[in-house]
Amino acid sequence: MTDFRAPYRGGFTGNEHHFALTVYFEDTDLSAIVYHANYLRFFERARSDMLRAVGIDQRAAHEAGEGTYAVTEMDIKWKRPAKLDDDLLVVSKVTKIRAASCSIHQRVMRGSEVLADARVTAALLSPEGRPIRQPADWIDKFKAILAEGEE
Amino acid sequence: MTDFRAPYRGGFTGNEHHFALTVYFEDTDLSAIVYHANYLRFFERARSDMLRAVGIDQRAAHEAGEGTYAVTEMDIKWKRPAKLDDDLLVVSKVTKIRAASCSIHQRVMRGSEVLADARVTAALLSPEGRPIRQPADWIDKFKAILAEGEE
Amino acid sequence: MTDFRAPYRGGFTGNEHHFALTVYFEDTDLSAIVYHANYLRFFERARSDMLRAVGIDQRAAHEAGEGTYAVTEMDIKWKRPAKLDDDLLVVSKVTKIRAASCSIHQRVMRGSEVLADARVTAALLSPEGRPIRQPADWIDKFKAILAEGEE
Amino acid sequence: MTDFRAPYRGGFTGNEHHFALTVYFEDTDLSAIVYHANYLRFFERARSDMLRAVGIDQRAAHEAGEGTYAVTEMDIKWKRPAKLDDDLLVVSKVTKIRAASCSIHQRVMRGSEVLADARVTAALLSPEGRPIRQPADWIDKFKAILAEGEE
Repeated sequence: MTDFRAPYRGGFTGNEHHFALTVYFEDTDLSAIVYHANYLRFFERARSDMLRAVGIDQRAAHEAGEGTYAVTEMDIKWKRPAKLDDDLLVVSKVTKIRAASCSIHQRVMRGSEVLADARVTAALLSPEGRPIRQPADWIDKFKAILAEGEE
Repeated sequence: MTDFRAPYRGGFTGNEHHFALTVYFEDTDLSAIVYHANYLRFFERARSDMLRAVGIDQRAAHEAGEGTYAVTEMDIKWKRPAKLDDDLLVVSKVTKIRAASCSIHQRVMRGSEVLADARVTAALLSPEGRPIRQPADWIDKFKAILAEGEE
Repeated sequence: MTDFRAPYRGGFTGNEHHFALTVYFEDTDLSAIVYHANYLRFFERARSDMLRAVGIDQRAAHEAGEGTYAVTEMDIKWKRPAKLDDDLLVVSKVTKIRAASCSIHQRVMRGSEVLADARVTAALLSPEGRPIRQPADWIDKFKAILAEGEE
Repeated sequence: MTDFRAPYRGGFTGNEHHFALTVYFEDTDLSAIVYHANYLRFFERARSDMLRAVGIDQRAAHEAGEGTYAVTEMDIKWKRPAKLDDDLLVVSKVTKIRAASCSIHQRVMRGSEVLADARVTAALLSPEGRPIRQPADWIDKFKAILAEGEE
C-alpha cells in the first residue's frame, strides 16, 4: 500500500531518470491541451528530482550562495498533445558533462508515445549570474548516470 | 518499494483528503518563497485528485458537455511561507453540499504547521457557464465524505 | 499616436488605480475561460503598477533588503468568466493603511461588468519573512490615494 | 497623453513586430530572475498580438472550429537574465510561410541587449489536433510582413 502522505519521487532505471506526473487544469489552455510552455515546467520538475536523486541539494547550494542551475539552451519538439488527467512520464538522460554545464535529453511520454522531445543545456550560475564550475563531487555524480554514446 | 513510474495519487484518511506535493522552482518567486497565487494551483490539484478518488471523472464530464467545476469564491489566509524543496500536504474537507455547489475547507500544511488556509466554494457550470445541478450520484459521493459539523 | 515600444503603465483617476490588460492563451484553461488563479496574477500586476505610480520602487527595496510586500489574506469572488482576447481593467483602491500592512479593494472589470471582486491584505515582510513597519514616506504616499470611507 | 484604460497593443516597424512588456513578480523565480519557461509566455503574447495586428482573429477562428495555432518546435537560447521591473521588448519576424505552418524569429530585448533568442515553428491545427492549411487570406497577410532573406 502506498502512503499518500509521502510526496512523489522519481528515480532511475539504469541511466534513465523517470518522473511521473498527471495533467491538471492549471496545465491546460483553451485548446483543451497542455499549454506548450508548461512542458518546460514538467522538464524542470524532472531535472530537480534527478538532482535530488543523485544527492545534489539545490536549495542548500542556493542558500549557501554556491550557485543555481539555469537553462541556457533548449531545442524542443512538441509532437502530440497531452490532455487533462493524462498520466505522463518524463524520461531524462544526462548526455554530456562539461565543467560548467550539462546536456540532458528529456522526453515527455504517454505510454509508448513521445509527446515532447527536448535537448536541454543547463549551466551552473553564481549568484551574480556568471557561469561557474560545477563542484567535483557533482561532476562525479553525473558521471555515474551518464548515458554516454546515446543520442 | 514504490513504483516511480506510477503518478502520485492522494487519498482519504476518514473524511480528510490528503494530497502531498513538493515545491519546485516554477512555484517560487524572487522573495525565494512560493508565489501566493500558486497555492491556488496546489488547492486545485488536491480538489481534482479528491474528485478522482471518489469516482468523478472530470475529463469525461467536460468532454460530454455535462459540466465543469469552477471556483466561485475563496477566502484565503497565507500564514507562513513555503520554500523550494519543501514537502507539503494539502488537507481538504467537503463541509457543505448544495444542489449546484460545494464548500471545501483546504489547508496547505508543512508537518504540523498551517501555511495557508482557505474556504472554497466550487460550482458546477454548464459549457455555457451557467450553474447547473450536480448529478445525484455525485451528490451521494460527496455525502459519503462530508465532514459535517466541522468548521 | 502611441509608441508601442513603451511598455504599458496604468494610472490613477482620482483615488482609483486603473490597469488595463488583455487575455492571452497562457491565461486560459480547458474550460476556455481564464483559469481562476490567474486573476491573482492580474491583481498583482495592478498592485505593482500602483506602487510604481505612487513612487515606491519594489525592486530597489527588495535588493536593499528593506522588505517586500506579500499578500496575507484575500477574499475573492469570481462572478463572470473572462475569455481569450478580452480587454479587462483592474480597478484598485487602497481602503486602509496600518503600520505594517494595507487593505486594497480590487476588481477585474470588462466594460461595466465586474468579473472578479477581491478584498486583499498585503503586508511588508523583512527578508526573513517577518512583518515590518512600512517606511513613513510610503505611508504618506498611500494616504494621498486612500479611498477612505469607501467599501 | 496615453489613455491607461486602453490595453497595450504592439505594432510593426517595417517587417518587425514589436511588443513591450514589464517583468512582474509572477514572472520571477527564487534566483531573482525571470523563470526560463516564462519567456515562452512572453513570446506567445507577442505572436498573438502580431496576429491581431495583421487582422487575424484567433478567438473567432477557435470558436468557429476553424483551427488554432500550436507551437510545434522551438530552438531557444537564454543569454542574459531579466529581472523584476525590467522593461522588455519582444521583437518578432515571420521568416517563412508554409501551407500549414510558419517560422518566426523572436527575441526578447532589454534596450540593445538580447536576453533570449528563439526560432519558432507554429502550425495551424484542427479542433481534432491535425495540421490544416492556413486560409489563403491569412497566408496573404503573412506574406505582407514576411522578413524574407533575413536570418
